[in-house]
Amino acid sequence: MLALISSGVAVTRAEIARRTGLARSTVSLRVDALIAHGFVDEGAEAPSTGGRPPRRLSLRTRGYAVAGIDIGASHCRVALLDVGGALLVAREDPLTIADGPEAVLGHVERTLRTLLETAGGAASRTLRAIGVGVPGPVEFSTGRPVDPPIMPGWHHYAIPEFFEERFGVRALVDNDVNVMALAEQRRAWPDALHLLYLKVGTGIGCGIVADGRVHRGARGAAGDIGHIRVGERDNPCRCGNSGCLEAIAGGASLAQRLRESGLEAAGSLDIVRLVGEGNSKAVRMVREAGRAVGEVLSGLVNFFNPETVVVGGALAAVHDQLLAGVREAVYRRSNPLATHVLRIEPSRLGENAAAIGAAILAIEHALSPAQVDRALTTDATAV
Amino acid sequence: MLALISSGVAVTRAEIARRTGLARSTVSLRVDALIAHGFVDEGAEAPSTGGRPPRRLSLRTRGYAVAGIDIGASHCRVALLDVGGALLVAREDPLTIADGPEAVLGHVERTLRTLLETAGGAASRTLRAIGVGVPGPVEFSTGRPVDPPIMPGWHHYAIPEFFEERFGVRALVDNDVNVMALAEQRRAWPDALHLLYLKVGTGIGCGIVADGRVHRGARGAAGDIGHIRVGERDNPCRCGNSGCLEAIAGGASLAQRLRESGLEAAGSLDIVRLVGEGNSKAVRMVREAGRAVGEVLSGLVNFFNPETVVVGGALAAVHDQLLAGVREAVYRRSNPLATHVLRIEPSRLGENAAAIGAAILAIEHALSPAQVDRALTTDATAV
Repeated sequence: MLALISSGVAVTRAEIARRTGLARSTVSLRVDALIAHGFVDEGAEAPSTGGRPPRRLSLRTRGYAVAGIDIGASHCRVALLDVGGALLVAREDPLTIADGPEAVLGHVERTLRTLLETAGGAASRTLRAIGVGVPGPVEFSTGRPVDPPIMPGWHHYAIPEFFEERFGVRALVDNDVNVMALAEQRRAWPDALHLLYLKVGTGIGCGIVADGRVHRGARGAAGDIGHIRVGERDNPCRCGNSGCLEAIAGGASLAQRLRESGLEAAGSLDIVRLVGEGNSKAVRMVREAGRAVGEVLSGLVNFFNPETVVVGGALAAVHDQLLAGVREAVYRRSNPLATHVLRIEPSRLGENAAAIGAAILAIEHALSPAQVDRALTTDATAV
Repeated sequence: MLALISSGVAVTRAEIARRTGLARSTVSLRVDALIAHGFVDEGAEAPSTGGRPPRRLSLRTRGYAVAGIDIGASHCRVALLDVGGALLVAREDPLTIADGPEAVLGHVERTLRTLLETAGGAASRTLRAIGVGVPGPVEFSTGRPVDPPIMPGWHHYAIPEFFEERFGVRALVDNDVNVMALAEQRRAWPDALHLLYLKVGTGIGCGIVADGRVHRGARGAAGDIGHIRVGERDNPCRCGNSGCLEAIAGGASLAQRLRESGLEAAGSLDIVRLVGEGNSKAVRMVREAGRAVGEVLSGLVNFFNPETVVVGGALAAVHDQLLAGVREAVYRRSNPLATHVLRIEPSRLGENAAAIGAAILAIEHALSPAQVDRALTTDATAV
């Protein structure tokens, strides 16, 4: 019922009764409950076709908010959105994830409280749910990181409970590329049921949307494509194997090779700068990195048959060079049936993708039938 | 409601009312309709806790059947199952798919009629739906093959309509590896939500179950892994590229290389025979083929993170040798988090997998809420 209203498919009691096949009296009871519990607003009278004029229903966005939290290796971004998905306010700060969960989450908590108390459109809104993206594998059902390589001290840390104890609402935690994939699919490519989001930065990862839902796999490890072997190259990788995609095309590896040839390159940002300056060595290297990413992607396209591949991450800032290499390899190697409808595009949401995706997780949880049912059968007005 | 009854979760009207939260009178009306339309049987009285003794409900399997049809390159198998999934009867005949759809489907039609009319347990059952697996890509929504390489004359052929006109029930058509994956998941690995089925025969393909549902991709082309590049080998492939998995490890390619070394090997069956005889060249070749399959699979395991990989197809008959190679490569290359819970196992359903999987497609369609609703709101008793 809420889905019909929020999507605009049925916005009066009579339309809902027609659509669902439920009795008019049942629909009215349920709509009254949704209104009483703050999920739905009843608006002005709609044009009547005779009889008592029907009143338009809409998703209630006033008064409520969800938080989307993007924790990166060296930054955090906290965003508040209304439950309709509109961005109210966002703030980014530098931080070091290796400082461990207490320090990092303490900072996030303070930022979130500040935003909730002071930010214009968000002030005095009731928080309904929190979504969090972190740069490592997560067991989604418990929200706990599992052996995350760049997050020392975070293994099995109870992130959801941290937020639930402090804010009294449910917190959902996911791998950052998963929420980025979700954000791009929901916001930029809603017609693409099957979408891959490739993050090409210091490391390389992939978020997967299958049939409109995030695919996380058996242990939340799906999308870990940075250690797929490319050709028979022997570049040593930090994982202990050699020839891994990340060792060939990851920002850390590219920066190291640029330094070896005498250029100043601490990380992905310097590569982007060098390409921007037209440095031919850096340009060639990014193009080659794109081809290596494309070689791996060509296999994944044959296997998964997505409509859309979105390329994001720090190196996507040089997407002309990177995507040229990616497309070249994919169109050379992939099955024509799979590439016939395939689009390979740069990220549209850019640096907000993870925070927005985390907030979408929170919204879809708060408005899920199970959660709405729970709210309607308890006295509390907030979920 | 039907799902609650058929899974045994709630088998009395009172239990259904408790589980669904629906009014007892609503439940009774609905259950009466399910009984009247032949979906549900009402059995003996269950032990009472006082008051009128409740009666046990069960999925009605008497009187109805579904057909599962497996069309291969050189055989067809037609099976009848009851809607509870029990195999009633099956028949396999040789045929040549390249003879085209009229000849092949005409043969299938005659076989199906014979089974429906004469086979013991199936006789006089009403057919509810038909499932069909074919060895090529299919656009699932229309059931039409799309440029299937080994099925000349079948491109865009209206297979569902062929059966619907002749049998008056809905027919669903899918790629054969998809229905094999479905059959293995539902029957042998029901706890594995994410499963890959690798078919290693003349060609190499993969069926994908993601979150309990078949993943077909944007154009029904998902799982086409036979043309993923392995290492940097240059074996020419029939697809026009080189180094494809199928050109290295497919039965056709192995047989050709065995012939070149003077052995008699027309196809996969001869390879199985030679391995059985202990021919060291054939054994080495199958083991190497397993490693090549494993190299590709290791990437897919990192990407998809399945619980279970099932290996079937003609070469799976030598699965000791083949799986040794597959496991060796996967455990060497894949992410430890992804391989921690991974099982790589030979097919358990064997040669019946495709027909059973096609029948499961038909059952899940016939018992889907939309279909049951449609049946209850029309006068016809058969869907």
